[in-house]
Amino acid sequence: MRFTKEEILSLEKGYRTNLINSVTGFKSANLVGTVTPEGDTNLAIFSSVIHVGANPPLLGMLFRPVTVARHTYENIKATGVFTLNHVSRDIFKAAHQTSARYEDGVSEFEAVGLTPWYSPGFAAPFVAESTVKTGLKFVEEVEIKANGTLFMVGEIVELILPEGMIAADGYIDIEEAGTVAISGLDSYHTTERLARLSYAKPDRLPEPL
Amino acid sequence: MRFTKEEILSLEKGYRTNLINSVTGFKSANLVGTVTPEGDTNLAIFSSVIHVGANPPLLGMLFRPVTVARHTYENIKATGVFTLNHVSRDIFKAAHQTSARYEDGVSEFEAVGLTPWYSPGFAAPFVAESTVKTGLKFVEEVEIKANGTLFMVGEIVELILPEGMIAADGYIDIEEAGTVAISGLDSYHTTERLARLSYAKPDRLPEPL
Repeated sequence: MRFTKEEILSLEKGYRTNLINSVTGFKSANLVGTVTPEGDTNLAIFSSVIHVGANPPLLGMLFRPVTVARHTYENIKATGVFTLNHVSRDIFKAAHQTSARYEDGVSEFEAVGLTPWYSPGFAAPFVAESTVKTGLKFVEEVEIKANGTLFMVGEIVELILPEGMIAADGYIDIEEAGTVAISGLDSYHTTERLARLSYAKPDRLPEPL
Repeated sequence: MRFTKEEILSLEKGYRTNLINSVTGFKSANLVGTVTPEGDTNLAIFSSVIHVGANPPLLGMLFRPVTVARHTYENIKATGVFTLNHVSRDIFKAAHQTSARYEDGVSEFEAVGLTPWYSPGFAAPFVAESTVKTGLKFVEEVEIKANGTLFMVGEIVELILPEGMIAADGYIDIEEAGTVAISGLDSYHTTERLARLSYAKPDRLPEPL
């Protein structure tokens, strides 16, 4: 089956949104925790978080301007900090529910039944139930002119996870942690490892580690 | 276990790279196909592709400047087009092997045993063995000042996939397609669906679709 750009643009809006959200492949599943300067907490699910660099440790995420994530964006700009918390199989329904448009003043933590947890000296709330938790400070944002979205970059200031989950070479076994992957807008998946593969070299094929 | 930013910066380089590459969660797995103006093909695996928008249909990906992906970048800037091809369980070892530093003039297609396939009127090569194939044109790039990486945005001009894989609402069943997810730098995973969840509303909990 083949869609040209013109055919994509002529699709019914919901169909197009589902289709185009599926073509990138599997997505990361993170809950972003923020707080207003007055101390009101906010929690929102994001599927656009990607690795930007390891030294310094940087992550990036895409914001669409007019969405339910508006409070997340405003809180990060006001306080300079946010948290990323892996969505695991145990909390994926609660995580999805954070995308509902709750009234102003309602904390998604309370509404969906997740527990805010604070690390000493860090203003933004982590999700207690999440296995892999990252605290970040805002570094920069760049605008994508083509559609007015923003790519925001944060620097890791704190990383919290269970000890037994890190391999000798630093790899975190996020499958063992129960972390889920997202496809499209609303599909949640657990994973099964095929293999970790050795560093690729031109003169030999990769082997399972 | 807890790492501060200072502790992360003092880690051994390889350990830090594995660790920080794991914290974002699962990543998409795509082969990027490009061609030089002279017609020499190039193929490189990317784990940073994300959704940017559905109307117009935009995807984005991060480039580290001094990497094996240099040829991919130069080809896109020279020709204005590239392809994204899902990595499935059938080709994940060949896909990983594209990250080896082959000599100039060697096409990764031939070196790893994947087949270039061309759509009429589109210059960049697709991967014949890939189930979900997207042809894109370069739209813009923005620099991340914090580490000199580039976030590049492309617009979908063509989408090719098997007919039976699209749900009535436009969702592509990429699990059925055998698409894999990546964690860290080198771990490949198949998936098992927990559920598609209904659109979240404040007054009720999400239900499996």
